[in-house]
Amino acid sequence: MRVLKTVKQVVEWRISNINTRTQSSGFVPTMGCLHEGHVSLIRASKNENEFTIVSIFVNPSQFAPSEDLDKYPRTLQNDLELLEAEGVDVCFLPSAQEIYPQGIPLDVKEQRGPFVSVLGVSEQLEGRTRPNFFRGVATVVTKLLNVVLPTHAYFGQKDFQQFTVLKVMTEELFMNTKIKMMPIVRGSKGLALSSRNRYLCAESRDISKAIYQGLTAAASVIQTLEPGAQTSRSELLGKIHAVWAPHVTAGDFTVDYVSVAHFRSLEELEYVSRTNDVVISCAVYVQDREDKTTKVRLIDNVVLTDERGA
Amino acid sequence: MRVLKTVKQVVEWRISNINTRTQSSGFVPTMGCLHEGHVSLIRASKNENEFTIVSIFVNPSQFAPSEDLDKYPRTLQNDLELLEAEGVDVCFLPSAQEIYPQGIPLDVKEQRGPFVSVLGVSEQLEGRTRPNFFRGVATVVTKLLNVVLPTHAYFGQKDFQQFTVLKVMTEELFMNTKIKMMPIVRGSKGLALSSRNRYLCAESRDISKAIYQGLTAAASVIQTLEPGAQTSRSELLGKIHAVWAPHVTAGDFTVDYVSVAHFRSLEELEYVSRTNDVVISCAVYVQDREDKTTKVRLIDNVVLTDERGA
Repeated sequence: MRVLKTVKQVVEWRISNINTRTQSSGFVPTMGCLHEGHVSLIRASKNENEFTIVSIFVNPSQFAPSEDLDKYPRTLQNDLELLEAEGVDVCFLPSAQEIYPQGIPLDVKEQRGPFVSVLGVSEQLEGRTRPNFFRGVATVVTKLLNVVLPTHAYFGQKDFQQFTVLKVMTEELFMNTKIKMMPIVRGSKGLALSSRNRYLCAESRDISKAIYQGLTAAASVIQTLEPGAQTSRSELLGKIHAVWAPHVTAGDFTVDYVSVAHFRSLEELEYVSRTNDVVISCAVYVQDREDKTTKVRLIDNVVLTDERGA
Repeated sequence: MRVLKTVKQVVEWRISNINTRTQSSGFVPTMGCLHEGHVSLIRASKNENEFTIVSIFVNPSQFAPSEDLDKYPRTLQNDLELLEAEGVDVCFLPSAQEIYPQGIPLDVKEQRGPFVSVLGVSEQLEGRTRPNFFRGVATVVTKLLNVVLPTHAYFGQKDFQQFTVLKVMTEELFMNTKIKMMPIVRGSKGLALSSRNRYLCAESRDISKAIYQGLTAAASVIQTLEPGAQTSRSELLGKIHAVWAPHVTAGDFTVDYVSVAHFRSLEELEYVSRTNDVVISCAVYVQDREDKTTKVRLIDNVVLTDERGA
């Protein structure tokens, strides 16, 4: 595996090694701290393309000044060994200076240079509490896609809104990469894998499995509807909150949002039938039971549609 | 010459016809109403590349609701004949719906989809009176470059700030196209060619030549400085306004701005020596002498640097 640190090196490697007329390449952008979720993306890429490129870059522009950029987990040596073992061709490991030549202050008002915003799908859900998050994601993914020029890029369903933003971005900017979404990888008790899970003690991770259980309780209401029948938003939210209530009462969970939305427009739905394409998603702050100063924001979702992964 | 109206057609043409490993392509994006300025860009492209693609697209997103989108001059038949005569390979002639699949309302608050902003060089000069102009330019050029994927794209120096915005954008988003700037083409009396000149009667066009004469008066102050000597911003502005004053008094000119700035950062300079890289630029409203309801905003500039065209 080649570990390349500059844009120029990756572009030169790509031009020398990939014949774009006959060969495809898959790209998996990551922030490192790799887990089985990332591995599933890498294996999908390996399976579907001649070349697989993975980037590891903790992107400052998607963190707010108040967020965890500095303490975001970094496990570079393990990550590189994992990528090597998976047979990745190139790991792109740029510095922040390489990606943002004019620097990247966390205060948006001080930022200089090109930025990409995707209007209409960035403002709700994750965007409500993190107003510049998707601008940061869209910008860094644009940069990385232009460097790597992959045929396909792979993203996990856990960050469903991110997938939506990037799908709209690549399609409507006419980028030459197809964005693919792969299913959420979960631990044995259903907790979606996340680099941020490791902030939590074992007991709190165990409690956090209820996040997904709440979502599946709502999903099964939809899945068991008679053809033509509808359920309401309030019934679905009631099912979720019923599962979460003990943990909210105990102080383990603080709910940021729960959403029942159309899976493309991300517009909230008042009524849902079995044939609607819907995403039920949430963000929950989990209070760590061992370390009272630690509160971790976890996200999860369930997609109900035939188009999943399309 | 192929006239192609959809993104899909251009992408397919590109993939079938250009071997990117051995062949280069030049791209000239235009809003139509082609004149000798555009021809100079096309000839530069023809001279430097195996293939030349020209787009004609009056881009709604760079017009404010108050501006001249509807009456912007359109001369399609002439334009196509000119492109054919110049030996252009492909003319890309998309609809607004093709470029903006979610539609493109002129009210920015109603817009949906991906948009590219280039912070730091878009807010001053042209951006002061036209706050979303460069967002519109950067967005449409990103889309067009992704469709055409040219080796080089050609822009006129007349829109110097546009060149600066697009240079920063392509370099810092790592796009795979080099942006090239070609010198301003001027009429016999020095007036910079512009599609908007035709809004003016012959007498007002003749008067408008003074715009450039003012800029050259300031430029010659810099060019005749002793090595190590400086001139001040106020002296330069004085020279320009002395040339323009009769026309301001007569009601022909209303000055929007005059700028003496660093030619890369576009930051205003208080003092200038012969070795500074400087752009002297302006926008002037010209009152038409025949039609009192017509007032045309013209821009022009002089660049003093060895890097011109780099």
